[in-house]
Amino acid sequence: MSKGTVVLAYSGGLDTSCILVWLKEQGYDVITFLANIGQDEDFEAARKKAESLGAKKVFIEDLRAEFVENFIWPAAQANAVYEDRYLLGTAIARPCIARRQVEIARKEGAQFVSHGATGKGNDQIRFELTCYALYPEVKIIAPWRIPEFYSRFHGRTGLMEYAQKHGIPVPTTPRAPWSMDSNLMHIRQNDTELFKIGSVKKLVLSSCTHIISTTNHAPADLYLMTKNPEDSPNDPDVLEIEFSHGVPVKVTNVKEGKSKDSPLDIFSYLNEIGGKHGVGRTDIVENRAIGMKSRGIYETPGTTILLSAHLDIETFTMDKEVRQIKRGLDIKFAEFVYNGFWYSPECEFLRHCIAMSQVNVEGKVQLSIFKGQVYILGRESPKSLYNEELVSMDVLGDYDPCDASGFIRISAVRLREHHRLQGYHGAKQ
Amino acid sequence: MSKGTVVLAYSGGLDTSCILVWLKEQGYDVITFLANIGQDEDFEAARKKAESLGAKKVFIEDLRAEFVENFIWPAAQANAVYEDRYLLGTAIARPCIARRQVEIARKEGAQFVSHGATGKGNDQIRFELTCYALYPEVKIIAPWRIPEFYSRFHGRTGLMEYAQKHGIPVPTTPRAPWSMDSNLMHIRQNDTELFKIGSVKKLVLSSCTHIISTTNHAPADLYLMTKNPEDSPNDPDVLEIEFSHGVPVKVTNVKEGKSKDSPLDIFSYLNEIGGKHGVGRTDIVENRAIGMKSRGIYETPGTTILLSAHLDIETFTMDKEVRQIKRGLDIKFAEFVYNGFWYSPECEFLRHCIAMSQVNVEGKVQLSIFKGQVYILGRESPKSLYNEELVSMDVLGDYDPCDASGFIRISAVRLREHHRLQGYHGAKQ
Amino acid sequence: MSKGTVVLAYSGGLDTSCILVWLKEQGYDVITFLANIGQDEDFEAARKKAESLGAKKVFIEDLRAEFVENFIWPAAQANAVYEDRYLLGTAIARPCIARRQVEIARKEGAQFVSHGATGKGNDQIRFELTCYALYPEVKIIAPWRIPEFYSRFHGRTGLMEYAQKHGIPVPTTPRAPWSMDSNLMHIRQNDTELFKIGSVKKLVLSSCTHIISTTNHAPADLYLMTKNPEDSPNDPDVLEIEFSHGVPVKVTNVKEGKSKDSPLDIFSYLNEIGGKHGVGRTDIVENRAIGMKSRGIYETPGTTILLSAHLDIETFTMDKEVRQIKRGLDIKFAEFVYNGFWYSPECEFLRHCIAMSQVNVEGKVQLSIFKGQVYILGRESPKSLYNEELVSMDVLGDYDPCDASGFIRISAVRLREHHRLQGYHGAKQ
Amino acid sequence: MSKGTVVLAYSGGLDTSCILVWLKEQGYDVITFLANIGQDEDFEAARKKAESLGAKKVFIEDLRAEFVENFIWPAAQANAVYEDRYLLGTAIARPCIARRQVEIARKEGAQFVSHGATGKGNDQIRFELTCYALYPEVKIIAPWRIPEFYSRFHGRTGLMEYAQKHGIPVPTTPRAPWSMDSNLMHIRQNDTELFKIGSVKKLVLSSCTHIISTTNHAPADLYLMTKNPEDSPNDPDVLEIEFSHGVPVKVTNVKEGKSKDSPLDIFSYLNEIGGKHGVGRTDIVENRAIGMKSRGIYETPGTTILLSAHLDIETFTMDKEVRQIKRGLDIKFAEFVYNGFWYSPECEFLRHCIAMSQVNVEGKVQLSIFKGQVYILGRESPKSLYNEELVSMDVLGDYDPCDASGFIRISAVRLREHHRLQGYHGAKQ
Repeated sequence: MSKGTVVLAYSGGLDTSCILVWLKEQGYDVITFLANIGQDEDFEAARKKAESLGAKKVFIEDLRAEFVENFIWPAAQANAVYEDRYLLGTAIARPCIARRQVEIARKEGAQFVSHGATGKGNDQIRFELTCYALYPEVKIIAPWRIPEFYSRFHGRTGLMEYAQKHGIPVPTTPRAPWSMDSNLMHIRQNDTELFKIGSVKKLVLSSCTHIISTTNHAPADLYLMTKNPEDSPNDPDVLEIEFSHGVPVKVTNVKEGKSKDSPLDIFSYLNEIGGKHGVGRTDIVENRAIGMKSRGIYETPGTTILLSAHLDIETFTMDKEVRQIKRGLDIKFAEFVYNGFWYSPECEFLRHCIAMSQVNVEGKVQLSIFKGQVYILGRESPKSLYNEELVSMDVLGDYDPCDASGFIRISAVRLREHHRLQGYHGAKQ
Repeated sequence: MSKGTVVLAYSGGLDTSCILVWLKEQGYDVITFLANIGQDEDFEAARKKAESLGAKKVFIEDLRAEFVENFIWPAAQANAVYEDRYLLGTAIARPCIARRQVEIARKEGAQFVSHGATGKGNDQIRFELTCYALYPEVKIIAPWRIPEFYSRFHGRTGLMEYAQKHGIPVPTTPRAPWSMDSNLMHIRQNDTELFKIGSVKKLVLSSCTHIISTTNHAPADLYLMTKNPEDSPNDPDVLEIEFSHGVPVKVTNVKEGKSKDSPLDIFSYLNEIGGKHGVGRTDIVENRAIGMKSRGIYETPGTTILLSAHLDIETFTMDKEVRQIKRGLDIKFAEFVYNGFWYSPECEFLRHCIAMSQVNVEGKVQLSIFKGQVYILGRESPKSLYNEELVSMDVLGDYDPCDASGFIRISAVRLREHHRLQGYHGAKQ
Repeated sequence: MSKGTVVLAYSGGLDTSCILVWLKEQGYDVITFLANIGQDEDFEAARKKAESLGAKKVFIEDLRAEFVENFIWPAAQANAVYEDRYLLGTAIARPCIARRQVEIARKEGAQFVSHGATGKGNDQIRFELTCYALYPEVKIIAPWRIPEFYSRFHGRTGLMEYAQKHGIPVPTTPRAPWSMDSNLMHIRQNDTELFKIGSVKKLVLSSCTHIISTTNHAPADLYLMTKNPEDSPNDPDVLEIEFSHGVPVKVTNVKEGKSKDSPLDIFSYLNEIGGKHGVGRTDIVENRAIGMKSRGIYETPGTTILLSAHLDIETFTMDKEVRQIKRGLDIKFAEFVYNGFWYSPECEFLRHCIAMSQVNVEGKVQLSIFKGQVYILGRESPKSLYNEELVSMDVLGDYDPCDASGFIRISAVRLREHHRLQGYHGAKQ
Repeated sequence: MSKGTVVLAYSGGLDTSCILVWLKEQGYDVITFLANIGQDEDFEAARKKAESLGAKKVFIEDLRAEFVENFIWPAAQANAVYEDRYLLGTAIARPCIARRQVEIARKEGAQFVSHGATGKGNDQIRFELTCYALYPEVKIIAPWRIPEFYSRFHGRTGLMEYAQKHGIPVPTTPRAPWSMDSNLMHIRQNDTELFKIGSVKKLVLSSCTHIISTTNHAPADLYLMTKNPEDSPNDPDVLEIEFSHGVPVKVTNVKEGKSKDSPLDIFSYLNEIGGKHGVGRTDIVENRAIGMKSRGIYETPGTTILLSAHLDIETFTMDKEVRQIKRGLDIKFAEFVYNGFWYSPECEFLRHCIAMSQVNVEGKVQLSIFKGQVYILGRESPKSLYNEELVSMDVLGDYDPCDASGFIRISAVRLREHHRLQGYHGAKQ
């Protein structure tokens, strides 16, 4: 008697392979789902592996175009950055994957979904909130939070033994032994992963005390998606990105004359050029959703370029005060998305508001990509609020400088009143 | 009969020299004040020039240390950035200068102050709001807003003729003919200036139409404070910046072992290293205080490094929610400062709040400076909220993963209710 | 030779009558425009007066329905309150009037508009920003800011003499000698007006020093739109207001069975019932747009009821987090509107966002109106997110109380970390 | 062998009495703690009851003065209101009680604390977050979340039987059978409680469907702290409240000449007068911390008066822009407090910022209390920024009306640019 059907988010790696077998052991029928969101993976090998381990059905789906259009693009419109530095590569991928996973669960009549995210991280939250939001009756099996599972498989050795016992292939290459997250947007390595990789790579991290862990420089070969700027080309690439409604509709390599115009191609090309020049590396300590601080090392080449260009064309075409309101919404949006609420009334509302703000965000931005850096070179737009004549010192146009005197004096009324009562007492700050 | 005494913010350049003479012509006694805030200037030559043009008194004062400690440091605590990109180098310098200028005016019994800022820019506002805030009864003479002045001197030719007629030395080198702003924090060149420089330098900017003006790439020799990254060293410098209360108290060049520990030395050294590696160049279109968009090209090497390091140590040592509130205050602070309100009840309040948030912002950040880019390498702090054990996947410690299930399910209550009523209807975004 | 045509916002009172004649004296053709936005006025008498004083054309238009639907309704959706207390009755009326005025100016080929607002108030700003936003080329004549006008007519005597000389009828009743603002939304009396009324009414305000002016209680007969609660009925009226998309679509007097369902009728009825029970009186000191504080005494009966009911149905039907974001937008909206920016990119954007948030704000609110107070009695909605079963203590339903333990422990992770490092040291707040 | 010592927050009522006995049954030593925070309770009877039920120690402490000074006063400085209507009477009391409870636990060497809050409410969160924040190692026993407890005692019958069996006195009066919250600030009755009371009171609430529950009017005798306004005095009381640093330092009944000047006396007197006139009743549906909506009926007489008066004196003495920033902090503060984070880094930070904003919030407010309503009559302050001369229409003073023209024209630059590009197309909103 089956306990029911589980749709498992399957990565093809050691841990979700073990989970697959373990779920069967617990009496479930298991359907695996592997989303292609741009990670470097042998999907056919993963299919065979899942089948050989007893998956009832195996779904492998290419969500890359959808990921770009429905997730990366809205995030770009929102200039989505968490805590001023993290570009949300993982946070945005989770709802894309989980959305499809619950669709499969509904279609296949599965009451359960499962995943391999750990119990201390953000991903479990992003994953499960999406599931609950889109399939409220679903039951979630998170083995890394189930004591029988995590106390049994704690540490790599437990998993290895279990794998050997159950004929689960064990990776012989040491790369990414756990759950390094890689997708079209970025590669993330965090705390745990960093050390694992370190140890596997025989780096001497012998005294990983509290302080050393966050001071320890990232090893050069940790980076997979971006060239070391020290080794990157000595000639910049110059790109022109064309926007409409706040999303890129074309990217052109100005020197080479080459251009791309489908969302997936555009984004992939930004990744390629960014990666080539070592753009988008960041090493940060961030605040997780569950209130602990965590170190993450990210490579986000394409999004780094895109963010730069979007900020530029947006400021160029958007009214000052609208920009300021919208910027407040952007920041909230990034926080909600980081915390797992992509599918929520608040994010839905924010996406609508933000999309509305992008109606006139169109035009072209030229930028140079060189040695890890993005330089904006210039921009043009049919919708720009920039007015050369208005701004010029040589042309007064419709502008009367005397007005500024009144403007300033009126702005000072409040300051003078404040002084009258409180006083600044000379040099006081 | 004198109309009274004017303290003129004197730059030593053509336009404020003409203003000096013109004010005398109008019947005022003129005291000139020239602040050294780190610009590249021959102060003694300026003194002689002012004296020879009839200044009653000449004040030249070195405000560099004060500028760093009382202006740049509080801005660093606030991660002060306007519209996500402009580091406020001019906006922060104006109140520093004007504060001293009104002190001199009070001391010298002058009822008037004057300056050479134009009638379309931000600087007139920053300058005058400071004056009104600290010396409410002061009268301001802004010649570029007085029709008799600006219609007479409109364009360079008028000024040149006036200069020749009145024995005002005319610069023979074409550099910075107007009011390019340069100080310890940055060099700014904006719209007008850009074109002037261009034309003086014989760049062919023949068709400066609306679109071309903002698309036109900045000429390579426009940059004065930073090396072109293409020509900068092929070896990074590695710095360690030590913070206390959110401000740097020491900077060490890790390879060279050299270190600085006074505010002015620290900041100057950050400028030196940043400039050497081409750090801090930005080309933006920003929204001016008076509602027009304007292009600015900035070089801000030291502050760019400092901002990176401060963001890092702050996030490392500050509680997540405090950070979020404080970030909101930062953004408001930057807006107020940009708009000229450094000396205002609101900025005073914000500075107090922000300073209070910095009590535990202490520790060391290591960073690498290379080819225009700043890379954070690691950080350590006795006040860090980072907890290696808590975050580790191998150690549960005091953390029960089951709690996360409850956390997520409670967080989902609202989402499921929303679904119940509105529904997401499958693939809907 | 005419200097051109002016469309004058004409109130029928002494000052705009004098302005009419004065504008003619200055050589302009004058078209008068008088908007009926619900003030108590003899419109036909005003027409005759304007004609007799030489208006080239007289426009008198009933904008009441438009005022309710396009101005009061969006403000209600935004729960628009300035500084927590002022319901924006004047601020919302100005753009409604000025919008029509510039339409007339365009249609009649007038290059000028004029108004009787003073040079220290908010209304000049609200009026003129609307004009510039909708008719950027318009020239504005604001006599109370023109030295020849205001120095000549300063104080009531100057106007009276001018009126007598030019055959302008002088009001014999002393009520509202200046510009008390009255419309469908409210009656406002502020600083100046209050004193004027006072003096005319022979109240002994002999020592109107700084402190007395704001401590001085409003005289009982100052109120025109609302009954004194001490004299209001001893029986409450019970209303049921039905909302759709966040605006009222029907109001029913539950006891009397009477109901209204057109916007103007609904709003007028709320005013009637509110006024009958003394609802909506407020005496505040507010911060004007131009940085001074000013006392205002307001009567806003209908809007006070509407705000209460809308807040209730909104909270009942809107997701918690959406509400919080939307509340931030509301507050900004009220500030912009107060400061005169109804017609601006930012208010346009905010109105769109807010309208979007109202899609599910529907249902019925019952409330009791009694002695100056509005009591919410209950509410119902087909779109409510209230879930009786979920909230019940007797029914667990789909809710597992154990989840709350996890939720709380995870929420406490951050607090415990904070304690670990900083400590609260026992009783410290 | 004892499992350890538990400090139980004991109310003297049925459920915490059962918990006391049940905890003993489970093998714990139980210390009871009953805080007097102003609720109507026979504390000596509660002491005897606890002792007779086997409490090892009984703590009964009068926290009223501390509650007023350290909790109600800071909330008043923050104008603390949740979702625009709830004055946080319960939310503020919880940390006051729990703080003392963990102090006792530490002092008595107890590893456990316990309480009778239910598993769906806010109070469990407020209670426990305080405990974890101040005593991170504490273990919490929340019986209403422990399946063995809540499945055994679910519903009143279970508790009654258990009580009878264990000699726990059962209340014979039907008042507040469950956990109606009453303290110095307010009395709260919510969803569940409302129905319970209803049923006990034999109200026919036979068809408590979803809609009826929130439409059902509160029965008149539900209110305990405030008179029905219909029966309240026909003469207002006029109070003068004097503030210093944003908190009341004296209240005077103007007619009676009576005054109070200790915090507890002041607050109690505000409650008395407010209660006498039926002030502070609200019936709302609010969003709980855990994402469900819940109906609450509140009586908060003193705080309602205080909030009105504080808002008035604050606006009178605080700069416009500071007020706006501070208002944003207030709103965040109220949200955090509602959600249980009184003792958190963020609330600590906000309290400091808010306190700093109150330095000049001093002066006197006169108000009239009548039939459920608070009317501000006037205010005075030595620190007011109100400037009668500046605001007067008759005196220009230092103010030049022409400045307003410039102010408006500069403010319109942006609007005209927007029109130039987008256009409002006439009547468009």
